[in-house]
Amino acid sequence: MPTIIFLPDGLRVQVDIGSSLLEASRKASIQLPAICGGRGICGKCRVKVVRGGLTPPTEAEKTHLGQLLYSGFRLACQAKILGDVIVNVHDKAPLTKQKLAILGFEPDVDVKPGVFKVYMELEQPRLENVKSYEAIVREALLERGIHISSFSLEALRKLPKVLKKSGFKVTITIDEGEVIDIDEGDTSGVLYGVAVDLGSTKIAAFIVDLLSGETIYGDGVINPQVAYGEDIVSRISYILEDEENLEKLRIIAVEAINGLIKSMCSKLGIDPSLIYKVSLVGNTAMHHIFYGIDPTSLVYSPYPAVSVNPIKTKASALGLNVNKSAYIYSPPNIAGFVGADAVADILASRIYESDELTLLLDIGTNTEIILGDRHLLLCCSAASGPAFEGMQIRYGMKAVEGAIERVKISDDGLNVEYLTIGLAKPRGICGSGVVDAVAEMFRTGIIDSKGTINDRSDNPRVRCRSNGREFVIAWSEETAIGEDITITQRDVREIQKAKAAIETGWLLLLKHYKASVEDLNKVLVAGAFGTYINPESAKMIGLLPDVPSDRIVFLGNIASSGARLILKSLYEVAKAIDIAKRVRYVEIAVDPDFHRIYLSSLGIPYMEVKGFKSFK
Amino acid sequence: MPTIIFLPDGLRVQVDIGSSLLEASRKASIQLPAICGGRGICGKCRVKVVRGGLTPPTEAEKTHLGQLLYSGFRLACQAKILGDVIVNVHDKAPLTKQKLAILGFEPDVDVKPGVFKVYMELEQPRLENVKSYEAIVREALLERGIHISSFSLEALRKLPKVLKKSGFKVTITIDEGEVIDIDEGDTSGVLYGVAVDLGSTKIAAFIVDLLSGETIYGDGVINPQVAYGEDIVSRISYILEDEENLEKLRIIAVEAINGLIKSMCSKLGIDPSLIYKVSLVGNTAMHHIFYGIDPTSLVYSPYPAVSVNPIKTKASALGLNVNKSAYIYSPPNIAGFVGADAVADILASRIYESDELTLLLDIGTNTEIILGDRHLLLCCSAASGPAFEGMQIRYGMKAVEGAIERVKISDDGLNVEYLTIGLAKPRGICGSGVVDAVAEMFRTGIIDSKGTINDRSDNPRVRCRSNGREFVIAWSEETAIGEDITITQRDVREIQKAKAAIETGWLLLLKHYKASVEDLNKVLVAGAFGTYINPESAKMIGLLPDVPSDRIVFLGNIASSGARLILKSLYEVAKAIDIAKRVRYVEIAVDPDFHRIYLSSLGIPYMEVKGFKSFK
Ligand code: FES
Ligand code: FES
Repeated sequence: MPTIIFLPDGLRVQVDIGSSLLEASRKASIQLPAICGGRGICGKCRVKVVRGGLTPPTEAEKTHLGQLLYSGFRLACQAKILGDVIVNVHDKAPLTKQKLAILGFEPDVDVKPGVFKVYMELEQPRLENVKSYEAIVREALLERGIHISSFSLEALRKLPKVLKKSGFKVTITIDEGEVIDIDEGDTSGVLYGVAVDLGSTKIAAFIVDLLSGETIYGDGVINPQVAYGEDIVSRISYILEDEENLEKLRIIAVEAINGLIKSMCSKLGIDPSLIYKVSLVGNTAMHHIFYGIDPTSLVYSPYPAVSVNPIKTKASALGLNVNKSAYIYSPPNIAGFVGADAVADILASRIYESDELTLLLDIGTNTEIILGDRHLLLCCSAASGPAFEGMQIRYGMKAVEGAIERVKISDDGLNVEYLTIGLAKPRGICGSGVVDAVAEMFRTGIIDSKGTINDRSDNPRVRCRSNGREFVIAWSEETAIGEDITITQRDVREIQKAKAAIETGWLLLLKHYKASVEDLNKVLVAGAFGTYINPESAKMIGLLPDVPSDRIVFLGNIASSGARLILKSLYEVAKAIDIAKRVRYVEIAVDPDFHRIYLSSLGIPYMEVKGFKSFK
Repeated sequence: MPTIIFLPDGLRVQVDIGSSLLEASRKASIQLPAICGGRGICGKCRVKVVRGGLTPPTEAEKTHLGQLLYSGFRLACQAKILGDVIVNVHDKAPLTKQKLAILGFEPDVDVKPGVFKVYMELEQPRLENVKSYEAIVREALLERGIHISSFSLEALRKLPKVLKKSGFKVTITIDEGEVIDIDEGDTSGVLYGVAVDLGSTKIAAFIVDLLSGETIYGDGVINPQVAYGEDIVSRISYILEDEENLEKLRIIAVEAINGLIKSMCSKLGIDPSLIYKVSLVGNTAMHHIFYGIDPTSLVYSPYPAVSVNPIKTKASALGLNVNKSAYIYSPPNIAGFVGADAVADILASRIYESDELTLLLDIGTNTEIILGDRHLLLCCSAASGPAFEGMQIRYGMKAVEGAIERVKISDDGLNVEYLTIGLAKPRGICGSGVVDAVAEMFRTGIIDSKGTINDRSDNPRVRCRSNGREFVIAWSEETAIGEDITITQRDVREIQKAKAAIETGWLLLLKHYKASVEDLNKVLVAGAFGTYINPESAKMIGLLPDVPSDRIVFLGNIASSGARLILKSLYEVAKAIDIAKRVRYVEIAVDPDFHRIYLSSLGIPYMEVKGFKSFK
């Protein structure tokens, strides 16, 4: 019989050949999180193998661990024992870049979701002391120190049947003082929540175990509302065409979220009725549409939101397929263009608690910009457009297989090296690739500081087409599309406009804070695109301020982290409300310096010297 | 020009011939309640004419005033001026018996319904200081000292459109700190509520003006659930047959209430969306069914209710057609057989504030019995059955035209005088007639104190049929049905059982209170049946305790009064909650004296001497 040693405690067990590491861990009384019950789905039973004989990695392990397999990580439920093994159960793998883009950086918090379950064996009513069923439940809870403020009508409706069928052995689910559900028998071991990040382009949802606080599953889909307009403005135009379209768009979002919940639940083998709480963040327009609130005021000056207050309501009333009595919560919005997603960003990034002056950029079609520390928080929003997502770029594409994501141009401008996602033949160029390309074109003098591609008869990559000059990144024989992949003069202009919008935003926030780039202790970059950009190129073109690279931190999709934090803890809910109150929204468009700075920001880098020392 | 003098203040005006008294009152700046706007519908513009020349009463006046026309009452909007007139605008007509049976006695209270409206002209958002629409509303309210805790999602959804269409001139409706609605322009002059008394047999609903507190319309229908069982037990059996039947019965009640609301609103010319609050009382079973809570536990020992707590929820979620964001409120139940209707009884009767020891009987198929004062309140319930409603009585019928409602037998037992409703030829005998008949049969020796009809060869009215002896009340030639109308031995037995159930109840409550009949300062009789009974006969058979007749007060349908009080004032809501906490429910069936007292109570009167001095 092989011997298995579990580090760091050195526990030893002997098991039969062919047992899984998970079975061995159980024999050693070690609690590995095996949420999917050992089916290779949840990826939670990860351990680091120090030495030993195990079966080769399964498909499930390849999916969950990827590169981590090479550092010795395995899924305990999948790896079968062939000989003696030493594993370390406490070695946590770092988040991969890909995971970061989806999951985002998430600070540790105590799990206090407000919703909890209590299993109780209740006394049956007796003729000598008849009590109502509700009173029996209330009094039994009170004996445990739990005071109930109300009973949901749904729970009351289930109460008689569940009591009768279970012989008065029931599990009560309570959310912030309200009894929201009652089950037969003991179900106190299962309590889930769903956090939703409702983006204009992508919807991500996460199932969180509200007992442990672990995120046990996450998934995303393209927001099907894109069929009615890629951006917010065109969706709002669609609503302006016909009032009924608001409900149509709302239902589309609800159905998409329901689809995510359904598929995640079926993969985990849990019933959606075990989801007792939902949190949802999104920008103000997405938020309004989701709740059926007309967002059209957001496109007319002065662009007021209808509501910036937190919303808490029954999820089922909105059409979500979760527990019938579950609540959905959305944190406050800040303003018309700075939504609950920005509050989630600030919350997850912990800027509002920091002593260090920090700039946070959540880069997307609309970029939220936050500057501050625990004393003062300023925010604004920049209409950066979709160029960083590869849109409106001649050969632009999303960051999927075949997209050029890194570009390096030789100093003489004659040779180009590039990397594609999946190392496939290039099919186009994604946002981070375009930023690299423009930065390199500037560094090597192919474009000047006005962004103009200069005529270079010595360089065959610089050429003139009917639409103007362009620079060849990949020759047709290298590509999968049978065409050259180029960066056109128009592409450069798009990137200039996009980065100028963002740059103007943070420059004006710095002005309002009365600080300069040198004062920035940290620059946090959030959003999927942000996770993949090359910080040196981003600084080169002026998208990011020119701070030492060790001050730049990539946080990934922290809006979703914020949504999960809010789901996991009422303290985080309170913090979110506090943040929304404290953040000062700066309407940069009315700043007298706006136009001057925007025009200067169109240059690569910023054409005034101020704040760009290292490029001087 | 005729001169009109208004008493008691002696104001004088001159008006043209043909003007209405209402127009004259307006000219004199006298505010008569003319809720229907002078259309003869609301009956509120009642005045007492002391002297003068007016057009003859209209149909509307005949409907609203009936007998009161003869005491000089007129509807000011209907009576047109022909010559000089003196009217008294402060002389209030007493409630007629019929009105009492429907409306019930209702103490005056300050109108504080929790829901109110504010008309505001709001500032439009400006680019220099952009606020969300919700914030604009909240801040404007705060300036008036009104703090808002939340905004209903429905109100948020209406907000942008209403603001835009009205140019930011809106009326906000607030219920207990929550904004529940928003209207274009100034609608602050209209604010209605509906109070519902959901009886097993009859549903009554009342529209209350929540600005003045006036009940402006009331109407009733037979509860259509009777098609699924006359009494509670058979309706619960129907639910036991198939779970789905609960929802079926629930919908039937909801539809009936919607029907009442619709017809009342259309008669008043108001839109049901102007109803911003609903209160509902009923016995525990009706209450449970209405809220979709399985009531079947009420028929199995120990008969626990599912919930006795107050319920507050959105009326629209239950299917009621009122304002979408209106709340419905039901006061607490006390126990399985003593429901929210009993709480409403206690509330409206003011027993709980009284220094006098009071017995309250709300007589129906199930009779609620309450005994107490401001120090101690006891209650129990008696299964009195439907005999008092004329059911299970050979010639029994409901109290409608042609029913014998009063019976007087000559001392020798040979002659019978009776009165029928509407003075029509008799078709049968209603509850109050049966009580009279049994009491008179006892007084004249036709039945003995055991209730047995004795053989009397000298009296042709006493005869023997196949089913036993009977006593003829009306000979066939006097009746409209071509048959003799009689009281059979079985009828007497039914009345004995019914009154014994009630008598046992109040005797046992007296025992628990350690008081006797002599200590009773007041006996309050509620319920439609109770309003019509002859108190002397009721005392004679032992249905009511033998107290001096001036201590017996008929209150009519005070459950509905309680429902209206709760609708009109949050203080009354708080009192109802307090009452339910203070009332001690006595389970009389487990009292060791129950059987002995019940058997004795079958006698006419109570066969033990105690407590029946005046009949000794
Ligand atoms: S337990 Fe191993 S993947 Fe879930
Ligand atoms: S105003 Fe006369 S009846 Fe209504």
